[in-house]
Amino acid sequence: MRIGVLVSGSGTNLQAILDAVRDRDLHAQVAVVVSNKPGVKALERASEAGVPSVVLSHKDFANREAFDAEVVRELRARDVELVVLAGFMRIVTATLLDAFPDRVVNIHPSLLPSFPGVDAQGQALRAGVAIAGCTVHLVDGGMDSGAILAQAAVPVFATDDEESLRVRILAQEHRLFPQVLQWFAEGLVRIEQDAAGHKRVHVASESRATFASAIDAVES
Amino acid sequence: MRIGVLVSGSGTNLQAILDAVRDRDLHAQVAVVVSNKPGVKALERASEAGVPSVVLSHKDFANREAFDAEVVRELRARDVELVVLAGFMRIVTATLLDAFPDRVVNIHPSLLPSFPGVDAQGQALRAGVAIAGCTVHLVDGGMDSGAILAQAAVPVFATDDEESLRVRILAQEHRLFPQVLQWFAEGLVRIEQDAAGHKRVHVASESRATFASAIDAVES
Repeated sequence: MRIGVLVSGSGTNLQAILDAVRDRDLHAQVAVVVSNKPGVKALERASEAGVPSVVLSHKDFANREAFDAEVVRELRARDVELVVLAGFMRIVTATLLDAFPDRVVNIHPSLLPSFPGVDAQGQALRAGVAIAGCTVHLVDGGMDSGAILAQAAVPVFATDDEESLRVRILAQEHRLFPQVLQWFAEGLVRIEQDAAGHKRVHVASESRATFASAIDAVES
Repeated sequence: MRIGVLVSGSGTNLQAILDAVRDRDLHAQVAVVVSNKPGVKALERASEAGVPSVVLSHKDFANREAFDAEVVRELRARDVELVVLAGFMRIVTATLLDAFPDRVVNIHPSLLPSFPGVDAQGQALRAGVAIAGCTVHLVDGGMDSGAILAQAAVPVFATDDEESLRVRILAQEHRLFPQVLQWFAEGLVRIEQDAAGHKRVHVASESRATFASAIDAVES
């Protein structure tokens, strides 16, 4: 399976994917990394892993669709089958989604449908939840509203601030994201539409839920 | 600590509380059970545990406030300090809440703020979440919107229907609810108001998050 990873920043989720490929936990190849920002750490990570990368500055395009059209061109040029948004800070349009139907995935640092959009960890802390987490989901036209592929839960502690919660959730993201990509690689993911037109995800013989272990909780 | 439990139906959460009192896991006394429906199983459970009960049919009262005023009278007559809604299917008013400030607690079968209101399990299944759960929270004037005391998470499986998910969550409710009541009994719960006027819960030296164990997950 050939993966294209879209990034905007430090790329720690990209690194987790590259490490999983290296360790053969993820039977896939990162065919290209596309960044909408020059000079970001994610590009270094790609380079160190020997993965080709492209910088497409969204400022050079008239609108989102024109930018996405160029992204699609780059992905297709590398025969990408699955598009992974890994800290990609741009809203994607139908131009990208229609080019890769049901094959654009994102990770979001909350247990969706709670706390979509920006600052999910801050939203969670302000809501006073006891359990937070992250969600890998298909990308659709909405804000973090696509079908849920998998979720991981973590405890929230009285001593948490946004940074400590972000780090705890991020550790789960780094585990969960490569795992879900491996499900795609193994052909375990089936996507159906229900009577109401909502997409439903079925993952053969795998649990889509994981929980930070008691040991993780004690460590924090 | 003297607890008053409000019920409307079978009262399995009441039973979990009564069992925890009997087993000395909960250092409290159920002083009275109030049901808004005659003949429900919860009243049998109270009777079997030697706990006095009262039936107040909401149909006998002109409005919610008049009903709640009578509930308050019954609770005060038994020197109740903490009011527990255990499957109580009535919206409570300021008449009750003002009589027991920050001392009315409820359990809801979702990881709030996701899926408030009725049919939380159905809402969760329709949203396609991988992780569901339950929440013990303070009751305020809103719909399942009060400050969160504790949460428990469970996995959702591809084979789940509303009943199987309800049962899995209920097992966690029966564990979580007595535990939170024990925190109140031990004086571990502190409730503060933040700058924005939102109530925040602090529980001394306890994690407010629990997860169904991997064994639970495999069993299901």
